[in-house]
Amino acid sequence: MEVVNVARKLSQFAEHWSPKIVGEVNDSYVKLVKFKGEFMWHHHEQEDELFLVLGGTLRMKSREHGIEREEMVRRGEFIIVPRGVEHMPVADEEVHVMLLEPKSTLNTGNVRNTRTLEQLERI
Amino acid sequence: MEVVNVARKLSQFAEHWSPKIVGEVNDSYVKLVKFKGEFMWHHHEQEDELFLVLGGTLRMKSREHGIEREEMVRRGEFIIVPRGVEHMPVADEEVHVMLLEPKSTLNTGNVRNTRTLEQLERI
Repeated sequence: MEVVNVARKLSQFAEHWSPKIVGEVNDSYVKLVKFKGEFMWHHHEQEDELFLVLGGTLRMKSREHGIEREEMVRRGEFIIVPRGVEHMPVADEEVHVMLLEPKSTLNTGNVRNTRTLEQLERI
Repeated sequence: MEVVNVARKLSQFAEHWSPKIVGEVNDSYVKLVKFKGEFMWHHHEQEDELFLVLGGTLRMKSREHGIEREEMVRRGEFIIVPRGVEHMPVADEEVHVMLLEPKSTLNTGNVRNTRTLEQLERI
């Protein structure tokens, strides 16, 4: 059993949109990620995703039944995006996030493009 | 999709050792709990448990193969207790924790006594 210091782990990488695995709990990974700018619209068929904001403000855009919404998620707040829901994280300034999602989760969900990461680094 | 402010949720209850459900992600609940004093030795047969410390310092005692250990888990740190591992959380001063564990998890694990909570409140 290892104690993981989140700030220390965050200091170990700088890239945006590249989640790092920092823990494994049941069928899920705990990941840390830095966001900056816009990601892309996508959804996950089978996986709910938890976003806990550790620094900065995340704008989580989503759309369901043709209605687009945007939630502001600030430091010390989390949001859970249920499976199937189209979403796009946006970070006007850099945002630090702890993610919790099943091991099967692909970062770009139902889309595969140059931003898709087939393998994530463990730190 | 709801944005959950962790500090605000923590301000809504005072009892110790009484986890409150604040989110649901895949097969797990996100819970908030306040610890003070010693809990009790127990383990969970099927469930890994994540403890993210939000305030204070948690002492996580554990024992495996006859060896007792203690990890100090400070604010901004987490520890994952794998299924099967005997453990006892101890809080010399009040500690605030975010828990992530499968919905099936009983707070007292393999033990049932007056501290067992069959049903948790959602806040």
